[in-house]
Amino acid sequence: MAASEFESLEKCLESHVPEAELSEVKRILFGPESRKLDLPTCAVECACERDFELKGYRFDAAPEQLRPPRRIRVGLIQHRIVLPTEAPVLDQINAMHGRVGEIVEVAAMCGVNIVCFQETWTMPFAFCTREKDPWTEFAESAEEGNTTRFCQELAKKYNMVIVSPILEREDPHNTLWNTAVVISNSGNVLGKSRKNHIPRVGDFNESTYYMEGNTGHTVFQTQFGRIAVNICYGRHHPLNWFMYSMNGAEIIFNPSATVGALSEPMWPIEARNAAIANHCFTCAINRVGTEHFKNEFTSGDGKKAHHDFGHFYGSSYVAAPDGSRTPGLSRTRDGLLVVEMDLNLNRQISDKWSFKMTGRYAEYAEELTRAVKHDFKPNILKE
Amino acid sequence: MAASEFESLEKCLESHVPEAELSEVKRILFGPESRKLDLPTCAVECACERDFELKGYRFDAAPEQLRPPRRIRVGLIQHRIVLPTEAPVLDQINAMHGRVGEIVEVAAMCGVNIVCFQETWTMPFAFCTREKDPWTEFAESAEEGNTTRFCQELAKKYNMVIVSPILEREDPHNTLWNTAVVISNSGNVLGKSRKNHIPRVGDFNESTYYMEGNTGHTVFQTQFGRIAVNICYGRHHPLNWFMYSMNGAEIIFNPSATVGALSEPMWPIEARNAAIANHCFTCAINRVGTEHFKNEFTSGDGKKAHHDFGHFYGSSYVAAPDGSRTPGLSRTRDGLLVVEMDLNLNRQISDKWSFKMTGRYAEYAEELTRAVKHDFKPNILKE
Repeated sequence: MAASEFESLEKCLESHVPEAELSEVKRILFGPESRKLDLPTCAVECACERDFELKGYRFDAAPEQLRPPRRIRVGLIQHRIVLPTEAPVLDQINAMHGRVGEIVEVAAMCGVNIVCFQETWTMPFAFCTREKDPWTEFAESAEEGNTTRFCQELAKKYNMVIVSPILEREDPHNTLWNTAVVISNSGNVLGKSRKNHIPRVGDFNESTYYMEGNTGHTVFQTQFGRIAVNICYGRHHPLNWFMYSMNGAEIIFNPSATVGALSEPMWPIEARNAAIANHCFTCAINRVGTEHFKNEFTSGDGKKAHHDFGHFYGSSYVAAPDGSRTPGLSRTRDGLLVVEMDLNLNRQISDKWSFKMTGRYAEYAEELTRAVKHDFKPNILKE
Repeated sequence: MAASEFESLEKCLESHVPEAELSEVKRILFGPESRKLDLPTCAVECACERDFELKGYRFDAAPEQLRPPRRIRVGLIQHRIVLPTEAPVLDQINAMHGRVGEIVEVAAMCGVNIVCFQETWTMPFAFCTREKDPWTEFAESAEEGNTTRFCQELAKKYNMVIVSPILEREDPHNTLWNTAVVISNSGNVLGKSRKNHIPRVGDFNESTYYMEGNTGHTVFQTQFGRIAVNICYGRHHPLNWFMYSMNGAEIIFNPSATVGALSEPMWPIEARNAAIANHCFTCAINRVGTEHFKNEFTSGDGKKAHHDFGHFYGSSYVAAPDGSRTPGLSRTRDGLLVVEMDLNLNRQISDKWSFKMTGRYAEYAEELTRAVKHDFKPNILKE
């Protein structure tokens, strides 16, 4: 079976593993089962008509005496590109606005409070080509670009926080960045978070286009909780997740674009490990489909020049601090994952497991400060 | 099905998922398949007679022009206690020496170069009881205790590096530690590594017995590669794995004792994430079985007093830097996992993925130094 045809791990397990064993399999793989969330019929019908997958799950927390529950709903959107990559740039952007707009409408029907789109969601992931033209034309101002304005309208209309990861062009010194714009449910731009770690692996030639971000580990206080954005390759860096958490993030989004042959076995591991280690929720989002480019390119692997990056495998999911996670969205279809979470769970799990309290961070600050010096002598014991 | 009866995730998948889909399921769950290692017939027969599971896998690396392969074999041993917990202390220790000795003999037949035992392997995991008597009598000198002498004999006899995690009593100021003793294949004690992070969760009342270790992140240069030991609860702390790696560890062992209800969904995630993030091999080892104690104890969870800690679920495994892992050993049986690994894979994967190069550690050293101050102001943006 070709990897691009295999729709979903969870569906496969559910069709073949007998009921008695399935619960053990799921417990070991996914943790305490996340309960299904009832979604309104109009949303389910709409998703069906518009041909995207719609799934809902919930993570509950225990009742507390002094705090009311803090139940909010996040939406994760994964999608393929709408027009071919040769279409005029503005047509491509507008088509993507249209597609995502109709998914956000369904998210609103589902009561979503915070929605996050995939990495550089307005464009094909064209960095594999190493061509500047026409791809840099997709870059926009984080504060005043068309895409931000489009998101501001949605945010106001639906009273929804929107995390919109785009290719950013910064004026006046004309620098490109890989940036998530965070738009408050008031419609105001709350701020932006730039990608901290830039890959140099396989076809991920992003360092040709932009540099490591300079926005540090900003956390955004929204009406629905404190959120942060760890863009794509930053999920491989545990320190990146950690530092967002140290700054108070309750939910860390990981908008991504990644392909099967390279990263798929790592995908279920990294965001989930971050949720466990940092006592927070993490939301991993990946695009879907295969994107074809007119001009052939090579991949630095000795293989023949070709026209596509490989299969983006979707599989977006949410991981909770207690080690559990939702099933993934499809590997092949556009989708919206709606997850209700009680943010009280973070502190409850922290009080139970106490990784922060037992973290000995002061010692690590000293050790790391020594370790980054050019004349660092590693602590290696020999006979 | 009771959790303590479910033998193995991998066996379950192999019996039920059709061949065509199984390869995709395994690729997504476990990464590129680790090849089976041919083990000598005498070892297979011996393991069968002595009633423990024996499994072998290999991780290969690409040939290089300037370096020969660095293929070595590690052995992971998981086992239940041999005598009841009421038996005299010395009898319990001797019985455990006998059991592990006969498994190490089979490891030698399999050409194992480095073997690691489970956490506090000479004793029941009695810290749930909060009784000092008789459990502190299991503590021994790391340098001169009976258990270390026993391991030194084995190390010399089989030309094998032995990682022996024990309850340590440090003279002359009579302090207990949770310590891994590293014994060179020459039979000399190469050094020791104390547990850096001590849990306060569930029945893990270890902070009643010993404090956080003071041996930092020592790495041991052995004839077969550079190794480090991250004991049990330290696997929940990404900084702990990271700092061993910064000091040059090529293989990090994680001798553990952990129970199903608490941690099982986290088990496949954390050591594997550490192997990926740090471009090294990690080896997670857990004991098996349920241990009964004479006196009842409570667990701080409002439930009735009881006599056992729950089911230790074994499932020991090895994770590689490329995101792949071996299947786990059984959840219910004693076992020896033999894994051949070419240590050249670490640098190859590092050259491919470059997490260290892109890690921006100098920035993190500064940020962390600020974050551990008592008057640290988190970077939170509000509207």
